[in-house]
Amino acid sequence: MPNSIEVNSNLSVDCVIFGFDGERLNVLLIEEKDIGQGLLRKRLPGDLIHKGEGLDEAANRVLFELASLKNVLLKQCHTFGDPHRVNDEKDKKWLEIYRNNPEERVVTVSYYALVKMANFVPNPASFAGEALWQNIQDIPELAFDHNEIVEVALWKLQRHFELSKIGYELLPSKFTLNQLQQLHEAITQEELDKRNFRKKIVREKIIEATDEKQEGVLHKPARLYRIKPGQSALGN
Amino acid sequence: MPNSIEVNSNLSVDCVIFGFDGERLNVLLIEEKDIGQGLLRKRLPGDLIHKGEGLDEAANRVLFELASLKNVLLKQCHTFGDPHRVNDEKDKKWLEIYRNNPEERVVTVSYYALVKMANFVPNPASFAGEALWQNIQDIPELAFDHNEIVEVALWKLQRHFELSKIGYELLPSKFTLNQLQQLHEAITQEELDKRNFRKKIVREKIIEATDEKQEGVLHKPARLYRIKPGQSALGN
Repeated sequence: MPNSIEVNSNLSVDCVIFGFDGERLNVLLIEEKDIGQGLLRKRLPGDLIHKGEGLDEAANRVLFELASLKNVLLKQCHTFGDPHRVNDEKDKKWLEIYRNNPEERVVTVSYYALVKMANFVPNPASFAGEALWQNIQDIPELAFDHNEIVEVALWKLQRHFELSKIGYELLPSKFTLNQLQQLHEAITQEELDKRNFRKKIVREKIIEATDEKQEGVLHKPARLYRIKPGQSALGN
Repeated sequence: MPNSIEVNSNLSVDCVIFGFDGERLNVLLIEEKDIGQGLLRKRLPGDLIHKGEGLDEAANRVLFELASLKNVLLKQCHTFGDPHRVNDEKDKKWLEIYRNNPEERVVTVSYYALVKMANFVPNPASFAGEALWQNIQDIPELAFDHNEIVEVALWKLQRHFELSKIGYELLPSKFTLNQLQQLHEAITQEELDKRNFRKKIVREKIIEATDEKQEGVLHKPARLYRIKPGQSALGN
């Protein structure tokens, strides 16, 4: 990172980007570049904010700088300010190398988004080792309190999903009930009973059957559904 | 404020305390002490956070220091970080008097709560002029971006209310449908049609009629209702 930019040394942003691949929920992680100090660890894309930079602006910049992602609809999630959140032994070495004041308390504002993985292929920045999608059920120990930041973002995503069905736009424009169930299961992280799920979905009156069926499948083709017209406010 | 405490000069908290008086929604405001500089203005209770102090801790401290309020269930709301949020002309004089670095950008983490006004009587700190409940429909121009902070908190409160009926605990344990409608109207800031409101409430199955009626009223006493047993998770 260039040293000429003035940063707010105790304010950062971190982004929790959830990616849906049609089946499962993943989170975008950055793997540190191996500089031979045993620092090969994973973390969320995040960075200190620049002087004079807005918070949303910083979150978008970070996502572009670290993973080459653009046009992600980020939503502010939660601000983490535990005075000791960066003082864990496991993070000490990294801070000593990368920060001017490794002891200084850092408050971080987290952001989250839910995207269709096929549309967002991350490329690591030159100073990051890797930018990768990690299955939500398989997240290792991350830097700082990033595991907690992911948990809070997942909770908010789930709550938002229950309330306003964000995420339906990640499905094809016509989809099977199985595909819809997979989206629900991926986001809620719960296995759902097929019959109960279908009853609930019918009750909600958000989708409707089309005259079409799946094509090119080996099994009996399933009916295709779509979001009802007028339900286009979904996702807000 | 004592000068001996080290503060984070670019991090603050601000509290939006909504108070319900049985009829209307109010917001707790602090009126600056008149120090003869034309600085008599109103603002939210808030302050810079201390070094080594957590965010929740800071919000609780500020509320106690400025308005003598304790045990308010604060919820983190939103973080405001516009680089120019404290650079408005109207705030300049105040900053010059009260801040070491009046030009410095301040990011503020806002908190909100909804309380029964009768239980929380604010007393101003010695360095505040007044701590007062102001009707939400009658809020003057506040310091910095505090009007925006109130708006965002109101929006979150309304959304949370729709979703999980927080606030029902502000009613007496047995209440009339009129009282419940007043609570709804105060929080949503909308006038509701009595018949439609009653239909909606019945549909939601959250309350039930008791055998009791109002006592000591001049008009025809109304039926008393209560929250159904098992709905006690309300407010989370």
